[in-house]
Amino acid sequence: MELLDGKRLADEIKAEIAAEVEAIKKNGGKIPHLVAIIVGHDGASETYVGHKEKSCAQVGFKSEVLRFEDTITEAELLHQIELLNTNPDVDGFIVQMPLPKHINEQKVIEAIDPKKDVDGFHPVNVGRMVIGLPSYVSATPDGIVDLLHRYKIETAGKHCVVLGRSNIVGRPIANLLSLKANPGDCTVTVCHSRTPNIKEFTKTADILIVALGRAEYVTADMVKEGAVVVDVGITRVESPNTKSGWKLLGDVKFDEVAPKCSYITPVPGGVGPLTIVSLLKNTLKAAKKEVYG
Amino acid sequence: MELLDGKRLADEIKAEIAAEVEAIKKNGGKIPHLVAIIVGHDGASETYVGHKEKSCAQVGFKSEVLRFEDTITEAELLHQIELLNTNPDVDGFIVQMPLPKHINEQKVIEAIDPKKDVDGFHPVNVGRMVIGLPSYVSATPDGIVDLLHRYKIETAGKHCVVLGRSNIVGRPIANLLSLKANPGDCTVTVCHSRTPNIKEFTKTADILIVALGRAEYVTADMVKEGAVVVDVGITRVESPNTKSGWKLLGDVKFDEVAPKCSYITPVPGGVGPLTIVSLLKNTLKAAKKEVYG
Repeated sequence: MELLDGKRLADEIKAEIAAEVEAIKKNGGKIPHLVAIIVGHDGASETYVGHKEKSCAQVGFKSEVLRFEDTITEAELLHQIELLNTNPDVDGFIVQMPLPKHINEQKVIEAIDPKKDVDGFHPVNVGRMVIGLPSYVSATPDGIVDLLHRYKIETAGKHCVVLGRSNIVGRPIANLLSLKANPGDCTVTVCHSRTPNIKEFTKTADILIVALGRAEYVTADMVKEGAVVVDVGITRVESPNTKSGWKLLGDVKFDEVAPKCSYITPVPGGVGPLTIVSLLKNTLKAAKKEVYG
Repeated sequence: MELLDGKRLADEIKAEIAAEVEAIKKNGGKIPHLVAIIVGHDGASETYVGHKEKSCAQVGFKSEVLRFEDTITEAELLHQIELLNTNPDVDGFIVQMPLPKHINEQKVIEAIDPKKDVDGFHPVNVGRMVIGLPSYVSATPDGIVDLLHRYKIETAGKHCVVLGRSNIVGRPIANLLSLKANPGDCTVTVCHSRTPNIKEFTKTADILIVALGRAEYVTADMVKEGAVVVDVGITRVESPNTKSGWKLLGDVKFDEVAPKCSYITPVPGGVGPLTIVSLLKNTLKAAKKEVYG
């Protein structure tokens, strides 16, 4: 059993991006510039955006955070987005979710110029990804592809079972891995809350991707010997044995499943660290105009 | 075993659309208007467009065909598309494929205003469909959904196996049937040319959708007793026993598979007749501004 070490990979890819930014600087090119919009004072959002800023600094990107109170109107937020859309100095930007209830999140997502949509949530980018055209792939599925790719895990002809059908994980990773690509060319099965017999599917999986958000849902009896297991779940639970009083659990019962696997992600330290790297990759692509020319 | 009679359903839905158009007329509303662009003199394209015109006439739509020689430049074709995009009298339009080699088909598809893209091939419409937003769904997957819906076939919790991963059939129908919807809520597996053991999957399918383009590929031993089989394939083969000298075959060996099925589509007369109906439905939606408001 080998651990899929997302932390190590993230550092490796960040170093590659930093080197590329260094080269751009030397050649007098434009430094990639990422902007994050944050509305209100949600603790988790602050943490995410903080990580993003730190990562931008590590690779030499220019980064900015635009902060608005949660009293901002939808119209004013859309206006701010339009300013970023038309600002030639800004290569990419994200709007940190969730937004206050009086703002329509889907409307906000669709207001972002697809060329600057480095979160990859705009329907144009989703559609382009599904069709197999160049696109900004959203963070978690892109991180999973990176893991499989960098660990040289054979995917062609393998049966990949995805648990979960969310728009940000299950659905895009299922589409990506069934494409004629490498990683890709998998036979892909998507299971979800309405699948009555999930175990029958997971037991046949060569590659099992779990994104249900149910702590320790996958047990050893559900996994085939030698499988590759990617655990996207992350649930915070009370833990009297830790200093903080809580710990993070994945969707996979790691201790009993790991011995059966050829590869498995730890939680934390698996897919998580790669999600921010994906944002950096997309911003670099945006600066280089690689997706839309 | 019951036949999924696409021809009868198509007539039924056309009658419903015709009644709606009649009502629009009575209320002094605008008659839905579909335009088809056809480039060159491809025989199959002429046939398709002919069928579309006839169907438009049947339901009372206004329809037009714009014909261009295959010497038309890409720039000129894009200009014609822009004229349709901005013509308020045109609700929807399609560009019949294939196009001559000097014209980039993807560029043409993306030039069409998504609001008028009644073929549903624009990445925006693909992305919206995948996310579960209102969209124009392309003809074949939409026809399959109609078949399942009108025959009241239970899909929730069923295992649907899709053979083929094309952008116009396999990929969209897999996405549609895994959505939280009715028809939908299926566990979906996508198999394709790189799947080494297709039979292992097809044998577990409650609903089997075949879109490989390989005549009589699916045999009785590949199908579970009681399965619902939807055959999208259509291949023209020589036949000394028919007057014309040829006949049409599906991807399923109908004679031996049919007795095992609860429902099965004939070929021809299954999904085929519903594809044009889907175009009519999308044009009506466009006229009523149901998708984009």
